[in-house]
Amino acid sequence: MSKELVFGHQNPDTDAITAAIAFSYYQNQLGYETEAVALGEPNEETQYALKHFDMKAPRVVKTVSNEVDSVMLVDHNEPQQSAPDIDKVTVTHLVDHHRIANFNTAQPLWANLRPYGCVSTILYEMFNEKHIDIPAHLAGMMMSAIISDTLLLKSPTTTDHDREAVKGLAKISGETDYEDYGIKMLKAGTNISAKSDNEIVDGDAKTFELGGTTLRIGQVNTVDLDDVFARQADLEKEMQSLMSKNGYDTFVLIVTNILNSDSELLVVGANPDKVEKAFGKKLDANKRMNLPGVVSRKKQVVPPLTDAFEG
Amino acid sequence: MSKELVFGHQNPDTDAITAAIAFSYYQNQLGYETEAVALGEPNEETQYALKHFDMKAPRVVKTVSNEVDSVMLVDHNEPQQSAPDIDKVTVTHLVDHHRIANFNTAQPLWANLRPYGCVSTILYEMFNEKHIDIPAHLAGMMMSAIISDTLLLKSPTTTDHDREAVKGLAKISGETDYEDYGIKMLKAGTNISAKSDNEIVDGDAKTFELGGTTLRIGQVNTVDLDDVFARQADLEKEMQSLMSKNGYDTFVLIVTNILNSDSELLVVGANPDKVEKAFGKKLDANKRMNLPGVVSRKKQVVPPLTDAFEG
Repeated sequence: MSKELVFGHQNPDTDAITAAIAFSYYQNQLGYETEAVALGEPNEETQYALKHFDMKAPRVVKTVSNEVDSVMLVDHNEPQQSAPDIDKVTVTHLVDHHRIANFNTAQPLWANLRPYGCVSTILYEMFNEKHIDIPAHLAGMMMSAIISDTLLLKSPTTTDHDREAVKGLAKISGETDYEDYGIKMLKAGTNISAKSDNEIVDGDAKTFELGGTTLRIGQVNTVDLDDVFARQADLEKEMQSLMSKNGYDTFVLIVTNILNSDSELLVVGANPDKVEKAFGKKLDANKRMNLPGVVSRKKQVVPPLTDAFEG
Repeated sequence: MSKELVFGHQNPDTDAITAAIAFSYYQNQLGYETEAVALGEPNEETQYALKHFDMKAPRVVKTVSNEVDSVMLVDHNEPQQSAPDIDKVTVTHLVDHHRIANFNTAQPLWANLRPYGCVSTILYEMFNEKHIDIPAHLAGMMMSAIISDTLLLKSPTTTDHDREAVKGLAKISGETDYEDYGIKMLKAGTNISAKSDNEIVDGDAKTFELGGTTLRIGQVNTVDLDDVFARQADLEKEMQSLMSKNGYDTFVLIVTNILNSDSELLVVGANPDKVEKAFGKKLDANKRMNLPGVVSRKKQVVPPLTDAFEG
């Protein structure tokens, strides 16, 4: 067996980085030769967690086929979210919590998919099932990843598996007040003043094809909506520029207040009426719409938009 | 949670039938409400095993969306090998040992894929990991499925996991001489004189979309190649008829001698040159090609055909 690279999606978040480190460690314990890498630099939230638990960021790679023939994917399976040369290597392993889309393999592979809030929760269970000890520092990162993906277990994507994993990992890591730590970590990721307009609108954006039109849906976390909307004119300019460059018809930015779990949408481009229909609510004169209790793009924003655009 | 159906692929073999029974049992132990069903009647080999271990065949269904909203798949993921209305239901669980192809889901799902010789081997490990006892009769069927898929552990698809599972399951089932039982079971499935032309060419056939053309690849086991090829003219007529009825471009029949682990191909329809290219060998005047040591459609026939048709 030759060496394999393990990595998460482009624009890596804390789970994409952590799951790669954790799965690489797990596989090496089982006798594989793997290295965790990343398809981008860690964001500020991830940097905070890495520093707190005294861990190093994985090496950043642009392509993978120049180094290896085979790879292991975590936290994504859709090719457009992966390495640009993913079609030139064999995916031998996959650990993920997303839908399966356009993921095709020539050969059978090893895959563990569970519909949990976070891949690190799946990995926590896998370590337990194989009775492999999780080092304390790694446990701290895995706890951080679950807190990040579930917004401190408040997102509707959260499952009982995630709640149990956070508790178990907090204990192993020695971080007993995970709520206090979690708020600090999430806040570290919401330093709006340090983010460029592009990072705010597009740093975590994903593209969706709905009813014959192309939607780009970005999301940014904050502790104060005003920190974002004070820059609305510049953000709209950046969204318009990305739309004309990439052919998006509609750009929706979800600005989420992580302290009270509310979001405000900013909608630019075609079909604002369909967005209004999706949430049964009018956009205000500033093209914005407040959505109390909405924090999950996957579970609370994409499904109603899909119904409205395809209905 | 409402009831879900669990089933394997069309033209079910011993593993498709057994894995559905075993995974349904496993999930019911975990609190799900499931029923194992089948997309066709058990073949003679499976009937032999069911009778030997005093088990009933699952209910045969033609469609599934008339009964349930959600299903669990075993031993297949490609839609064209599944229920004809698979696009009308949600796949919540998948246990498989095949490549992933054209399998897309709207939501995250639970999936366990391992590149073993048989799904029943994956299930054997899953029972062990969750410390769920396997009833003796079910263990006998799971052992039979592994013997069937690996031709008594001789196919190149066989892994150490399959070897260990057969031993463990033989012990649980009380069938201590699994080799003697296995030969008898495999022979029961090779009673060529009792099979119709349709059963021989299409009983275990699967459809593959390769390079813009549609291949149908059937496989039949025998203890004497002459038993099959004595009927070649009638078999070709049946293959031609299925091709025009279903729009297949090419029909490849793999005739496998289970005693010496060799196969002979019979190729009908378009692109015989691509089949020749795939195996680096000419078809003879009878449209046949001998392939010593080839017994696995998945590992030894589909990959070179994929390269030749898509290359």
